[in-house]
Amino acid sequence: MPTYKAPVDDTLFLLNDVLKIERYGNIPGFADATPDVVRAILQEGAKLCEDVLAPLNQSGDREGCTRHDDGSVTTPEGFKGAYDTFVESGWIGLAADPNYGGQGLPYTLAAVINEFVSSANMAFGMYPGLTQGAIAAIQLHGTDDQKATYLPKMIAGTWSGTMNLTEPHCGTDLGLIKTKAVPNGDGSYKISGQKIFISAGEHDLTENIVHLVLARIEGAPEGVKGISLFVVPKFVPDADGNPGERNGVSCGSIEEKMGIHANATCVMNYDEATGWLVGTEHKGLRAMFTMMNEARLGVGIQGLAQSEVAYQNALAYAKERLQGRALSGAQAEDKPADPIIVHPDVRRVLMNVKAFNEAARALVLWTAIKGDIHARSGDETESQAADDMMGLLTPVIKGVLTDKGFENAVSAQQLYGGHGYIAEWGMEQFVRDARIAMIYEGANGIQALDLVGRKLPKDGGRAIMAFFQEVGTFVEDRKDDEALAAYVEPLKKAAEDLQAATMWFMNNAMTKPNNAGAGSTDYMHLLGLTALAYMWAQIAEAANEKLADGASDNAAFYETKLVTGRYFMERVLPETSAHLARISTGADTMMALDAEAF
Amino acid sequence: MPTYKAPVDDTLFLLNDVLKIERYGNIPGFADATPDVVRAILQEGAKLCEDVLAPLNQSGDREGCTRHDDGSVTTPEGFKGAYDTFVESGWIGLAADPNYGGQGLPYTLAAVINEFVSSANMAFGMYPGLTQGAIAAIQLHGTDDQKATYLPKMIAGTWSGTMNLTEPHCGTDLGLIKTKAVPNGDGSYKISGQKIFISAGEHDLTENIVHLVLARIEGAPEGVKGISLFVVPKFVPDADGNPGERNGVSCGSIEEKMGIHANATCVMNYDEATGWLVGTEHKGLRAMFTMMNEARLGVGIQGLAQSEVAYQNALAYAKERLQGRALSGAQAEDKPADPIIVHPDVRRVLMNVKAFNEAARALVLWTAIKGDIHARSGDETESQAADDMMGLLTPVIKGVLTDKGFENAVSAQQLYGGHGYIAEWGMEQFVRDARIAMIYEGANGIQALDLVGRKLPKDGGRAIMAFFQEVGTFVEDRKDDEALAAYVEPLKKAAEDLQAATMWFMNNAMTKPNNAGAGSTDYMHLLGLTALAYMWAQIAEAANEKLADGASDNAAFYETKLVTGRYFMERVLPETSAHLARISTGADTMMALDAEAF
Repeated sequence: MPTYKAPVDDTLFLLNDVLKIERYGNIPGFADATPDVVRAILQEGAKLCEDVLAPLNQSGDREGCTRHDDGSVTTPEGFKGAYDTFVESGWIGLAADPNYGGQGLPYTLAAVINEFVSSANMAFGMYPGLTQGAIAAIQLHGTDDQKATYLPKMIAGTWSGTMNLTEPHCGTDLGLIKTKAVPNGDGSYKISGQKIFISAGEHDLTENIVHLVLARIEGAPEGVKGISLFVVPKFVPDADGNPGERNGVSCGSIEEKMGIHANATCVMNYDEATGWLVGTEHKGLRAMFTMMNEARLGVGIQGLAQSEVAYQNALAYAKERLQGRALSGAQAEDKPADPIIVHPDVRRVLMNVKAFNEAARALVLWTAIKGDIHARSGDETESQAADDMMGLLTPVIKGVLTDKGFENAVSAQQLYGGHGYIAEWGMEQFVRDARIAMIYEGANGIQALDLVGRKLPKDGGRAIMAFFQEVGTFVEDRKDDEALAAYVEPLKKAAEDLQAATMWFMNNAMTKPNNAGAGSTDYMHLLGLTALAYMWAQIAEAANEKLADGASDNAAFYETKLVTGRYFMERVLPETSAHLARISTGADTMMALDAEAF
Repeated sequence: MPTYKAPVDDTLFLLNDVLKIERYGNIPGFADATPDVVRAILQEGAKLCEDVLAPLNQSGDREGCTRHDDGSVTTPEGFKGAYDTFVESGWIGLAADPNYGGQGLPYTLAAVINEFVSSANMAFGMYPGLTQGAIAAIQLHGTDDQKATYLPKMIAGTWSGTMNLTEPHCGTDLGLIKTKAVPNGDGSYKISGQKIFISAGEHDLTENIVHLVLARIEGAPEGVKGISLFVVPKFVPDADGNPGERNGVSCGSIEEKMGIHANATCVMNYDEATGWLVGTEHKGLRAMFTMMNEARLGVGIQGLAQSEVAYQNALAYAKERLQGRALSGAQAEDKPADPIIVHPDVRRVLMNVKAFNEAARALVLWTAIKGDIHARSGDETESQAADDMMGLLTPVIKGVLTDKGFENAVSAQQLYGGHGYIAEWGMEQFVRDARIAMIYEGANGIQALDLVGRKLPKDGGRAIMAFFQEVGTFVEDRKDDEALAAYVEPLKKAAEDLQAATMWFMNNAMTKPNNAGAGSTDYMHLLGLTALAYMWAQIAEAANEKLADGASDNAAFYETKLVTGRYFMERVLPETSAHLARISTGADTMMALDAEAF
């Protein structure tokens, strides 16, 4: 059975020494997040993930969820108990508003815990994860009454949440939504229609489920400008705020799917269900989008999380499995063969994944801090700059971390040879589970389009220019630092490729938008690689500082960072040139064929 | 349900116009393979695959194989009937020796049919596929008696075959094999031990199963030099050659695995089973390796096959699914949205897969022809040269076509959005099935090592130099051909990258073999890309010739080839530089860490 150990030390190094979060003591929540508190929280979260959630991952996958004839859904054995434990420790409300029972700690810490949970048991983590998304939407767009009704229960975890966007004929293109809302005259609406792919749509973990539903109010304008957001509770809260009358929403079936079997993916039928408007009429998409940033970061984290747990198991296997001899001569002469970690091609796989994971974790935390600054800083300029950067990097984190996370899970599985294909070893589950993260919350092609079509040109390119400015200053300030040259120079080269690609879009895509679409996925990965390289340069600098400070008790830890960062620069980053070359060829060839000629 | 249409026209174009097989009329089997005969065979094979095998693919995956308490195994519903149909048409013996009932046609045609079968139903195709491998081993290494006993039954398909190499503690490193063989004194041996991951190890399709088993004769030298090959029939043939006494070999369990559920992957227990030596004592590995070339090509074909069928379905979906509007303005104004094939990023995915599939098919056929020349040509020089090229390209076809085939199945699945993750749409099965091809018959890392460690230096680099010579001459002869410049120049650049990488190994890996291991996977892909580019250049030339000949009835077909080839050069081939850059960094960084530092 696969195992998992949460990367507590690595995360603490990133928070304390690389990103230096003590700098943000003036931002609400951060003052409470002292190094000791953060360590204690991470250790407690790690324990729960390692001891309670991870052991249910494989059994949950095998058993899956069961829908009964009455529409109720049972989660796999052990999930209800684990959920209760999870909720009792207050994990759902870690970063939530203290006015409704939350702990008010930085969102950044919630992102850390989300990674641990997703590594331990991705399907489990989606239940509280979707609740957190729904909390964010109600917090930002709900009325005071709605907040008072829903937030305390959801933050406590006794009620859970869902997001209902997709319909059979529309996923990406939400303008096509048909689910309708008819006013009842008392401020409520009758919601009717069918939603599909609703994660955690029905289950036995909570006493109530709060559905956030996109629908079209009768007579609303066509397209995305006529979509509103509604809250539709499974049980309508009674006067005391407890679950009351059963609402007209039910689970019609659960999907048989490739992975995340322990999470119920439901077809939800709304049959004149009572719902209440959240936010403004016809502005539902905007409300949904504000919660999407966080949700997309969460999915990016799932990509990293599967990459991390797959790596840990592949590493253990590579140290244990005896097969063949080192090319440079036998290493374990007392054994019938050497452990396969002696082979360069095995190390190549491990280093690829390791070098990605550690920088991806830094990038997630760096971006999560921007989220905290945006949401909590009183300084408008600072908040705006943080929002710009988070907006720019959210599609990159979602797209790149899930693409690479899946790829890494596949290559970790590969190290097991035939055993990787066999269910009992658990590696193929990581691959199947990781696969969904490339698809949901906006398929990665849509992330790339969001980046290139919306985030790049927004506000005259302010966000990407700020990114170039920041990286440029970093590089310039360190140009004479010999000890950092192996990191800074490749970063500079990558940023130049990214700038060239950005310029190419400016010169070629304004008049011919297909040129942007044709290069969007490559651009997303090019920006992702550059951002990861920027993280490695910062990690290397922090490691050098610690070594210079005489951190002799932990020197190996920092020296390993330096080697891993160098690997990233040598072996991963050269891909930026290929991305630039592809982008620069434009759209002509791929648009040349008639659909029938394919 | 997914569908499949065999690419008959594309294959005929490759055989007749690009590879011009009529040139080989002097080689046994080819004279019979006239254009009309080839077309008839391909059409008949296509019909079987489309109408009989493809409809059983999804149901076979869902039902899987069942092992009963007595050790017998039942294949999914419909498989026995399909197998009988398959066998009655003589497909197993298409290229087999006419002395034993085969049709003696070129192996190249068998490779075509293998692609069609693997696209239609990969798990089904493994049953006859393994039989073909076993036929090849007995044909090459068996005694006349063994040939007379086994080949007619196996070629007729009434008996099937298996390969038994892997044991729980050894996959790649066959020197560790423990299964033992004790002479009975009458020329036979008692075989005892356990083999795992035995595809088609037990099933209900044939009246007998012929196991080829690697084992160590008592007192044999340690390591790979003490391994012998044995034939161990499930039922020992009686004096009339019919299945007689039940032998001491049985299926202990079947593996629960990620995909190819309809193929029984068995743990096989040998308990003093009677076996007979095939070939020479202690030279079993060599005998196994001769059949491995063909088996590895077959697995490479599986990669292409999954890529092809996944592409066909993704293409159909992309033309049908309405979502969003073209960046350049609405295309289907009468519909609520445009079909997603209008979006450049969707086309990017389709073109990536299409550009790979068509060149990969050409490469398979080009290499299969080398196999035929090697096996059948009377001219020793010609045969040797063909064997060199086939030896060089076999690991490339296995490694690159399965890596890319899987990647392509994943990206085709991606075009379905959420539906791609749902079992009923069938796309996730292609991904799960394609995954095994990267692992079995030597994991792809082993293919890369075989290429760099064995095939490159063999005979002083004769094979790779012949490849450079051939590509160089092709490029040189066409350097003034304006119409081909868009293909020839990128090919020249790719070949230069490949030459630089080869030189780098010569200069850096002789004294430090880890430098070869560290670059092996990149080199395999670099050679693969160059070979595929060479195929595209030949395809483009053939298309130009046809267009110049006034093939006006089919001009769109050839023009599409020209566009697709250009796409390959612009968007796929730039990767060669990144491969070269990675190779040139050597092994130092990835070997720097102690195992415990990972």
